[in-house]
Amino acid sequence: MTDLDLLRVVLVASRNPLNIGAAARAMSNFGYAHLRVVNPYEPAFREARSAVGASELLASAEVYAETCDAVADCTLVVGTTAVRHRVLQQPLRSVEAGARLIRKRMRAGQVALLFGSERVGLSNEDLSHCHWLMRIPTCEKNISMNLGQAVAVCLYELARSEKASPGSAKKELAKGEDVERITSMLDEALRASGYPGPRSSNELKIRRLVRRMDLSASDSEVWLGILRQILWKVQSEE
Amino acid sequence: MTDLDLLRVVLVASRNPLNIGAAARAMSNFGYAHLRVVNPYEPAFREARSAVGASELLASAEVYAETCDAVADCTLVVGTTAVRHRVLQQPLRSVEAGARLIRKRMRAGQVALLFGSERVGLSNEDLSHCHWLMRIPTCEKNISMNLGQAVAVCLYELARSEKASPGSAKKELAKGEDVERITSMLDEALRASGYPGPRSSNELKIRRLVRRMDLSASDSEVWLGILRQILWKVQSEE
Repeated sequence: MTDLDLLRVVLVASRNPLNIGAAARAMSNFGYAHLRVVNPYEPAFREARSAVGASELLASAEVYAETCDAVADCTLVVGTTAVRHRVLQQPLRSVEAGARLIRKRMRAGQVALLFGSERVGLSNEDLSHCHWLMRIPTCEKNISMNLGQAVAVCLYELARSEKASPGSAKKELAKGEDVERITSMLDEALRASGYPGPRSSNELKIRRLVRRMDLSASDSEVWLGILRQILWKVQSEE
Repeated sequence: MTDLDLLRVVLVASRNPLNIGAAARAMSNFGYAHLRVVNPYEPAFREARSAVGASELLASAEVYAETCDAVADCTLVVGTTAVRHRVLQQPLRSVEAGARLIRKRMRAGQVALLFGSERVGLSNEDLSHCHWLMRIPTCEKNISMNLGQAVAVCLYELARSEKASPGSAKKELAKGEDVERITSMLDEALRASGYPGPRSSNELKIRRLVRRMDLSASDSEVWLGILRQILWKVQSEE
C-alpha cells in the first residue's frame, strides 16, 4: 500500500456538484483515489456522479451520514479551515507544515483530510473530530477559497515531493572557440554594414555582448548559421 | 509597487466562464489583481463578467487579440503546460522551482504567467513568446488539470515562495515589445539574406532563440542598433 492509498479526502455537506466533481478531478490529478462524502446534498451528489466524464473515483466514493463514521478507520484526522471569525480549539498549521506532518503520519495509518461546505465550512461538531487544522494562507481581503481549488492546493502540497523535482537538465554550454567565432562574425558583419564607432572598441563591446548571451552549444550552432548567411549577403554586395 | 502588482495572469483563449471566474477568484485569494485575457470566447467572457459575485478584478481585466500584445510590457513570460505529447522547445521547470525564479525576476519588471485553453492548452505560437515553461507535477494517468485549479495551485506556490526569496538587485530586463522587435528584425535580416527554411517555422525558431538570450534592457538597445544597421545594408542591396 502506497502513501497515496492512505489518504481519505472527506467532503462534508458539499452542495455544489461542480465542486464535488472538481475535488474528484484534483484527486485524480495528484494520484489520490479514495473520496468520502458526508451528508451530501443528494441532488448535487447525484448530478456530480452522472456528469459527463465523471470518474470511477467519483463512482466509488463512499457515502456517510456522519463525519464520525467517515473518519472511524483513520489514525489522523485533519480539518481545513479559512479561520474567519471563529475561536479555534485545535492547533492550526499552514498547509505547507501540515502536509509535511501528514506525509510522516501516513506511515502509521490512514489519514482523513476534511473539507467543509461551500457556505460555512466545517461545523464545530466536524472540527471536534480533528486532531489539528490546516489553513491555506490566503489574503485577509478574500480569505475563502472555492472548494475545488482548496482541494487542489492541499493535494498539490501533499504530493509535492520532498525530493527536488527533476526540473530542467543543465544545458550544455557553447565552447569558448564557438563563442569567439560568433563574436568575430558579428563584428565583421557590422563592419561590412557600416556600423559606426571605432573598430577596436566595437570589438570589445561585441565580445562582451556575446558572452552575456550565455549561449548553449546548440544555440551557438544556430547563431553561426545565421551569421554565416548574413555575412555572405552583406559581403557579396560590397 | 509590491511584487503582487507585478504579476499579470494571462488566460489565452479560455472558453468556460466558470473557469475564468475561478481564475479570478484564486487571484483574489492570493492577492494578485491584474488579469489579462487573450482572444476569449466572447459569450464566455461576458458571462463570467456578469456572473453574480463577479469581482472588480474581472471587471478591470484587460482584453487582447494577440498573445504578443498581452505580454508586450513584461520582462519575463512564463507558460504553463501539462506536457502531453509535445516536444518542448523551452526549458521546463516544476511549479516549485519556477515560482521561486519568478519571484526573483519580479524585481526586474512585470512577469506574465500564461494559461492556455481548456482543451488544447497553449499553442506553439503562444509558447514561442515564453522564456520558459512551468508544469504542475501531476500523475501520468490524469495529467491535465482544470484551468481554475491550475491557476490556484500556481498562485499558491508563488505566494508561498514569497518568504523564500532573498534579495539582490537584478539587471533591468528588456521588455517584451523590444524583444519582439529584435525577433522580427532578425527574421527580416535572415529573409533578406536568403536563410533557408520555411518562413513560419523560422519565425518561431528565432523567437525562441531570442528569448533564450535573456536580454537586459541596455543590451536590447545595442541589439536593436546592430540589427537596424545590418538590415539597412542587406535591404539596400536587394
